[in-house]
Amino acid sequence: MSNGQTDLLAKIADILTRVKQQRPLVHHITNYVTVNDCANITLALGASPVMASDIAEVEEMVSHAAALVLNIGTLSSEAVTAMVAAGKKANSLGVPVIFDPVGVGATALRTAAAEQIIREVRLAVIRGNMSEIKVLAGLNTGIKGVDSIADEQGGVQAAQNLAKQLGCTVAITGKTDIVVRGADLCLINNGHPLLTAVTGTGCMATSLIGCCCGATDEYFAGAAAGIAVMGIAGELAQRALKPEDGIGTFRMRLFDAVFTMTPAIIREYGRIEYHGRER
Amino acid sequence: MSNGQTDLLAKIADILTRVKQQRPLVHHITNYVTVNDCANITLALGASPVMASDIAEVEEMVSHAAALVLNIGTLSSEAVTAMVAAGKKANSLGVPVIFDPVGVGATALRTAAAEQIIREVRLAVIRGNMSEIKVLAGLNTGIKGVDSIADEQGGVQAAQNLAKQLGCTVAITGKTDIVVRGADLCLINNGHPLLTAVTGTGCMATSLIGCCCGATDEYFAGAAAGIAVMGIAGELAQRALKPEDGIGTFRMRLFDAVFTMTPAIIREYGRIEYHGRER
Amino acid sequence: MSNGQTDLLAKIADILTRVKQQRPLVHHITNYVTVNDCANITLALGASPVMASDIAEVEEMVSHAAALVLNIGTLSSEAVTAMVAAGKKANSLGVPVIFDPVGVGATALRTAAAEQIIREVRLAVIRGNMSEIKVLAGLNTGIKGVDSIADEQGGVQAAQNLAKQLGCTVAITGKTDIVVRGADLCLINNGHPLLTAVTGTGCMATSLIGCCCGATDEYFAGAAAGIAVMGIAGELAQRALKPEDGIGTFRMRLFDAVFTMTPAIIREYGRIEYHGRER
Repeated sequence: MSNGQTDLLAKIADILTRVKQQRPLVHHITNYVTVNDCANITLALGASPVMASDIAEVEEMVSHAAALVLNIGTLSSEAVTAMVAAGKKANSLGVPVIFDPVGVGATALRTAAAEQIIREVRLAVIRGNMSEIKVLAGLNTGIKGVDSIADEQGGVQAAQNLAKQLGCTVAITGKTDIVVRGADLCLINNGHPLLTAVTGTGCMATSLIGCCCGATDEYFAGAAAGIAVMGIAGELAQRALKPEDGIGTFRMRLFDAVFTMTPAIIREYGRIEYHGRER
Repeated sequence: MSNGQTDLLAKIADILTRVKQQRPLVHHITNYVTVNDCANITLALGASPVMASDIAEVEEMVSHAAALVLNIGTLSSEAVTAMVAAGKKANSLGVPVIFDPVGVGATALRTAAAEQIIREVRLAVIRGNMSEIKVLAGLNTGIKGVDSIADEQGGVQAAQNLAKQLGCTVAITGKTDIVVRGADLCLINNGHPLLTAVTGTGCMATSLIGCCCGATDEYFAGAAAGIAVMGIAGELAQRALKPEDGIGTFRMRLFDAVFTMTPAIIREYGRIEYHGRER
Repeated sequence: MSNGQTDLLAKIADILTRVKQQRPLVHHITNYVTVNDCANITLALGASPVMASDIAEVEEMVSHAAALVLNIGTLSSEAVTAMVAAGKKANSLGVPVIFDPVGVGATALRTAAAEQIIREVRLAVIRGNMSEIKVLAGLNTGIKGVDSIADEQGGVQAAQNLAKQLGCTVAITGKTDIVVRGADLCLINNGHPLLTAVTGTGCMATSLIGCCCGATDEYFAGAAAGIAVMGIAGELAQRALKPEDGIGTFRMRLFDAVFTMTPAIIREYGRIEYHGRER
């Protein structure tokens, strides 16, 4: 194991400690499908969620926050306006903005919204699935609803292109998770296929990134931390299942696993490959 | 057991297999109370949910979908406009539209919305409780919030009237579930009273119908399949309870039971009476 | 134990019985984060929830209801208009209005909304955390998102001031819950810190108050009953946990505990100090 890998794993474990100590307030403007899960996963990690989406209050709310999560899972033109206003305010205050481009490419509305957000707000981290990141990176790809169907080839390149264009961290979650920023690349091999059988696990991973980036100014490590926590939690949740259990129990166990996550668990279970500037 | 009953049960079991193979995309325009449950139950059965309700994207989204679910559990005038637009687009594409008239009759807004949807969209299946279907069928009845309080007499007749008026399948869920289309009548005796103690079990049954109708063009069988799965899942979830458990555990077990449902379980537990054209 | 304490505990136990017998319909205009939890906790106690927030139907819906819950957890100007209209209609019908001023003081929008509701609607009960009630009582305090960070000193006084100003019952939930109306004061020592690690437990407590006030016209006792049920449920849910469990399991057990709550459990576990007119 290279020093880079040891360092990153140690850094991720440390970020968990910081979240629990600092309890960062994470402001979400997000969809109405998984918003409750996002709030509970934020609390499970030890951070504090607030959801506010009206244009009349988002700028004031984000001024209290340590991170801002923008998620376009269910869109309206009002929501996009509020996201941009909150994002600009966050930029002016140095509050990191985490963007989840749910379903971008599936409809013109989502693509236009994502483009506007990317153009007008300086993002710290973008997390999506392979299709979504490829769409954002300008590559043509098929997209089926909000699920990723693209193959994984070219994922690292798409992430690197997008990260370079926007000067931010880009994360693709999938079988192997990819986190990219500049010359930094991290591959995370945690997770379990059952995570794709529960709605909102992607949104929750983005919320966890928000929690982590609210407790550190190293957003590459923060993105890796949020994704690693979700992946490890998925493994632990699956291990706790009995034969008669299904996604109901698995979903409950996910929250348990994030709640009981410790730096020691991250160091033990984290399967993280760091490929740094040497590449 | 008549051939009709054996055939229908076999068909329902077969539809479950098709859902898992085809993973139909089910577009929902639904309420903000139970939307997360609808997404998770769709995933539990093996289909793929997408929720999108803005007028600017619903027509495009439904063009990717195998079924469209319209649910008026929480209404706004914007939502009704989006539902009608999506429904018309679905009609033009041959995508089946499943309608859940939650609380129709409780307020003038809901009744007007349901009437507009029925008038402007060609529906494949309507699923409601006894009160809701009686209201739609033009029979006077009391309604208390969104719960059914009407007695079950006349339910079959109301469903038949409505099915005839609209040329669609009509399903009433209750102690005995009723599914009607033309001369076809199916009575389903699965289910458990605890299903009425969890919010959204009606909405989830409608989503399951959406999944099933997204995998077959026999909508009468699709409606019966969705309802049978929910009823059997309710029974299995209740059997898994310990004395100290309540609706929290029951609700979790519902998702487990749908996730672990197999054609064999349907054939073993399905209590389905088919009364066909001989009537 | 004074007679007052025995009486109040007996009254709370009796209110639970009434809820289960009467199954009051509780109309909620509430936030999209915890709305599903509010519906399920209402069902768990034995009451009947209905969620409707469009201005075109809220007055008609509240005319069917036994109580109205207003919760500003996620706000919009449309929602405030609907809340005021529904509240006025409830007032004209003698339906008790329960108000949860989530995050008041965090943004100008929330404070203005709360002020408008308090000014235009006659409230039966207000339930908030310490910060929220202090803001409403006109005392300056810090507020962090929607969590309470104010110390508990002065809580009773703030509640008494507000209760006197508005002629209603005021409840502050926290380590020790405070319920005040006129010269009546009740302190509830039930609950568990894990309740603060799950989103919506405050909202759910407010919904439970709505259920209880829908089954009695003694709103001071109704407020104490809703809060006591939530606190006792928190204790029972925590006791049911195994070492590997976290807030996922705890949250499920909360619903179980409310569902299996009995008058006998309330009498056994309720830790309620009543300080009546003698003070």
